[in-house]
Amino acid sequence: MQIGLLGYGTVGKGFYALAAEQPSLTVKTLLTRRPRGLACRETGDFADIARDPDIDVVVELIGGIHPAYEYISAALRAKKHVVTANKAVVCAYYRELVELAFQNGVCLRCTAAAGGGIPWLSSLGRVARMDRITAVEGILNGTTNYILSEMTARNAPYPELLKQAQQLGYAEADPTDDVEGYDARRKLVLSADLAFSALLQEGDIPCVGISRMTVADIAWARERGLVWKLNARAERRGDAVSAFVCPTLFPASTPEGQTNGSANRISLYAERIGKQSFSGAGAGGWPTASNVLADCLSIAGGAAPFYSDRPVEPLAVDNREGERTWLFRSYGRYAIRQETAAEAFEAYGAVSESDPTSLLAYLPYGML
Amino acid sequence: MQIGLLGYGTVGKGFYALAAEQPSLTVKTLLTRRPRGLACRETGDFADIARDPDIDVVVELIGGIHPAYEYISAALRAKKHVVTANKAVVCAYYRELVELAFQNGVCLRCTAAAGGGIPWLSSLGRVARMDRITAVEGILNGTTNYILSEMTARNAPYPELLKQAQQLGYAEADPTDDVEGYDARRKLVLSADLAFSALLQEGDIPCVGISRMTVADIAWARERGLVWKLNARAERRGDAVSAFVCPTLFPASTPEGQTNGSANRISLYAERIGKQSFSGAGAGGWPTASNVLADCLSIAGGAAPFYSDRPVEPLAVDNREGERTWLFRSYGRYAIRQETAAEAFEAYGAVSESDPTSLLAYLPYGML
Repeated sequence: MQIGLLGYGTVGKGFYALAAEQPSLTVKTLLTRRPRGLACRETGDFADIARDPDIDVVVELIGGIHPAYEYISAALRAKKHVVTANKAVVCAYYRELVELAFQNGVCLRCTAAAGGGIPWLSSLGRVARMDRITAVEGILNGTTNYILSEMTARNAPYPELLKQAQQLGYAEADPTDDVEGYDARRKLVLSADLAFSALLQEGDIPCVGISRMTVADIAWARERGLVWKLNARAERRGDAVSAFVCPTLFPASTPEGQTNGSANRISLYAERIGKQSFSGAGAGGWPTASNVLADCLSIAGGAAPFYSDRPVEPLAVDNREGERTWLFRSYGRYAIRQETAAEAFEAYGAVSESDPTSLLAYLPYGML
Repeated sequence: MQIGLLGYGTVGKGFYALAAEQPSLTVKTLLTRRPRGLACRETGDFADIARDPDIDVVVELIGGIHPAYEYISAALRAKKHVVTANKAVVCAYYRELVELAFQNGVCLRCTAAAGGGIPWLSSLGRVARMDRITAVEGILNGTTNYILSEMTARNAPYPELLKQAQQLGYAEADPTDDVEGYDARRKLVLSADLAFSALLQEGDIPCVGISRMTVADIAWARERGLVWKLNARAERRGDAVSAFVCPTLFPASTPEGQTNGSANRISLYAERIGKQSFSGAGAGGWPTASNVLADCLSIAGGAAPFYSDRPVEPLAVDNREGERTWLFRSYGRYAIRQETAAEAFEAYGAVSESDPTSLLAYLPYGML
């Protein structure tokens, strides 16, 4: 199987090295802005890949929405399989891309887009074909998990840890997508779309990140045997989905509470098989590249066009049912409230100089 | 795809119901000793399935080694794919069955044979194709985990909990395979064979079960913040594998320590992608049947003959390198020793009236 590779960053380099070890795969052409001196052909023009009849699969690792969307669409229209690690583009154009894959009888796979090296989306698709999935949730962002783990371990403030994460390459120069929870939210949308055969809109899902968190917040939790994690959760509620992304307090002794550093831990709940959890490296060149490679091998082995072939319907996000436990902070004081997710996030949205009440955390175990 | 189903116990019933929901699958014939009144054809003669050219896949759920081995071999020779949940037969005839599948160009899959409903062997095969796996380990037996969890929670003695597990259907009338660790050992052999492209002999792997455990042992651990789990572990050591099955003391706060009831938790360690862990229901009709169904769907989707196509070589078990921490009991007193696994299990084998020193546990975290 011959591959056209788009991008040669950390994941692209890892994928190139892994693919070289597979007798069934050859990277024929690399799309790159500057010469890399590789054994394969290098080009700066995507048309060299799109028009090459020898290329069976396009592996998109450039990230961002444009021109990734145009490249992926063009590749699918040219009846080439597509593998991508790009959650932003798949999330934004989920229905269009899945439909294009089916129309053209080729595969679209994006296992590396959620969970790094964990076989999460592929396992989720597998369960979705034979059971009714009731909820998906997890620690889906390695950057925030690293920052929270270090804040907890070293009692150091958020800005210092963010800077360190940037220096170590765990966080981007513009960390907004990670620290405000948008990256986790996109992974949640992808997971929920697949789990519920649904089409969720990113913007419908309320989202609180970790950028307002203080050393005092960490200490408050520690005194109570709790630790902070940025958790994303979506669950079926009748004809709608309750979904949100929020810092979440887990007892330190739970598997979630023990998921430290840049690790991810993701779970699904299904009616017949119960709960299944998956954990491992949620980011990094090798793990992410390994899921990209696994997708290529699945395609070489005759994978279906997409993880699920069930029709995809728009699904409303509705957080107005069911009271949960939440932690708020107002003028430096902490308050626990029982209310629906809709009410809790509404309060968060209302933060202002005159009413600085802030939603801090979801407490899935309540106050112990 | 038309299926010949062998056996209609708990898993067989679950599979029959799940398959009925899949448009691509039809159970054409059931091999059963007594009439079940199902819509499919029922027969007491395996030849009716083996000789039926319409049947593409044989699903073996009768368990035991004979006649399961003869049925599976005959099906593969008749160029029918085989899916089985039977760890005993695959473990005993691993090389023969894998070779038969390749020779006849059909699939052999047994994902339900280890980890119940967890996509463990399929994930392991996926990683084995692209990374070097250095170790596999886990809580692989639901029956012993249930008994140990209940002994811990209720401070009740082993014989009482075994009886309860039998009444609840968690343990067989003859519980030997579960409680002596043989079931976990077979699952370890299957996992290690796949992970290391190896061929291990069950009998080469030292194995201690839970049948000698006392309420005092549970209490000793509890005072130290530790909990008992029956853990199976295999790791590469040069050209050999160090492997053993042994009650193991995990800190109560670790993910392993928190794996309770009949749940399983299994991990792999690979050079590039690091550690990945999988947890969920390790037994039960629906979870096990779901992995059997997933195997059928993989075959319908064009799966390869086996999880891995790497050559399988006999591999020696060698536990003589590397000191670890072990807990022994002698005349009711506990002693911690640092020694190799080979030495620890040798001491266990030497238990007698005159020297009742008994290996109790492996302490992977040492004494905290």
